[in-house]
Amino acid sequence: MKGKVYLVGAGPGDPELITVKGLKILEMADVVVYDRLIPRELLAKCKKEAELIYVGKGVGESETQSEINEILVEKAKEDKVVVRLKGGDPYVFGRGEEECSYVIESGLECEVVPGITSAIAVPEYAGIPVTSRWYSSGFSVITGTRAGGQVIDNDYIPKKGTIVVLMGVNRVEELQKVLAEVRDPETPVAVIQEGTTASQRVFVTTLSKLSVTIKENNVRSPAVIVVGEVIKLRNKLWKQS
Amino acid sequence: MKGKVYLVGAGPGDPELITVKGLKILEMADVVVYDRLIPRELLAKCKKEAELIYVGKGVGESETQSEINEILVEKAKEDKVVVRLKGGDPYVFGRGEEECSYVIESGLECEVVPGITSAIAVPEYAGIPVTSRWYSSGFSVITGTRAGGQVIDNDYIPKKGTIVVLMGVNRVEELQKVLAEVRDPETPVAVIQEGTTASQRVFVTTLSKLSVTIKENNVRSPAVIVVGEVIKLRNKLWKQS
Repeated sequence: MKGKVYLVGAGPGDPELITVKGLKILEMADVVVYDRLIPRELLAKCKKEAELIYVGKGVGESETQSEINEILVEKAKEDKVVVRLKGGDPYVFGRGEEECSYVIESGLECEVVPGITSAIAVPEYAGIPVTSRWYSSGFSVITGTRAGGQVIDNDYIPKKGTIVVLMGVNRVEELQKVLAEVRDPETPVAVIQEGTTASQRVFVTTLSKLSVTIKENNVRSPAVIVVGEVIKLRNKLWKQS
Repeated sequence: MKGKVYLVGAGPGDPELITVKGLKILEMADVVVYDRLIPRELLAKCKKEAELIYVGKGVGESETQSEINEILVEKAKEDKVVVRLKGGDPYVFGRGEEECSYVIESGLECEVVPGITSAIAVPEYAGIPVTSRWYSSGFSVITGTRAGGQVIDNDYIPKKGTIVVLMGVNRVEELQKVLAEVRDPETPVAVIQEGTTASQRVFVTTLSKLSVTIKENNVRSPAVIVVGEVIKLRNKLWKQS
């Protein structure tokens, strides 16, 4: 039986940030089940006869997860090569583990192909390294919107190191409050909307002004929030093309 | 002037985990300055006439960093396309920010091309997602060996969420002690040597037995250490090819 599911990370936005392996599998897929947040240019790489199924979830549309799981299994049982194309990396807040476990429980093969995560690459394109020998020996990646809709709690936030928040824009007042329980209000913060794409916008502020900055500039999802001293390196690193 | 430096992430080991963009730039490079921890298969993708310069640093050989910086600038000033090929991602403990800043200060262009980080992809290939709606709303990535040689301090370790330690094997007793200051000694731990390659070895243990597990199995660098409940998902997710 050749039916198999591949969970493929499409990367953060720039279509050329998919891996060589991911692209190769995408090109041979019979069925591609894709999200809202994938670079659309990638779909042009699929076989002409490939079936493209959009399952783009907006924020909170988690009721469709079981439908997605079902599509993956159904199509693979028809002996098809199924690619589940996901923004970023399948195992970073992507619910990839739910999809993979469902496929395997259904007796089918599932292979996960990592993708470039926006948590690292979006700051990187904006001239911000998540680690630095000068400023930070580690970084933490958290979600602003958890399962069930609660905001993150401060047990996820260490005292030191860069913090990267994904999906934090819609809950930014609460998020700012939680961050300020652990970090100094004057800590530098960067907000990057649609990072790694031509529409990228970058705002540098401080933790105490995070929520105001987001409102004033009408920052929308997808956006990455970076908190930490590493933001100071942007002036040195941002003469990138 | 066409001379330019690209810092390109080569990914965690599997040569097909380089990005499409990274490979394209590598293929047109005049000079490739590469590390010990890059997939050697990638060098076969370079132009025949490309100059390949090995600067592979062992642990602690940081005195060569200024030499590396100098090579990058020198070659770019000769109007060459220079690729600095680095294991994983250039901005995750790669000293990429030092190289980039040196190149820019020298009046040259530098572009950073993200790579798949072993912090996420190595656990992923071993059936361990760093996040999970069931177990973890975030993850922290720390280095076991900091600038100056000290071990990480516990201010980098949050109370909750997955912890991924890179370069932790050589200082594992101290590392275990620091981790145990914050986390329960019975927390599940996975140690993955040479992840994403054919030589991959995986050991599952607990925090209290981390150092013993590493010694008994003679685990060597490069290895990734993962701490957290997400390791329990491995049984569900590891029927991957």
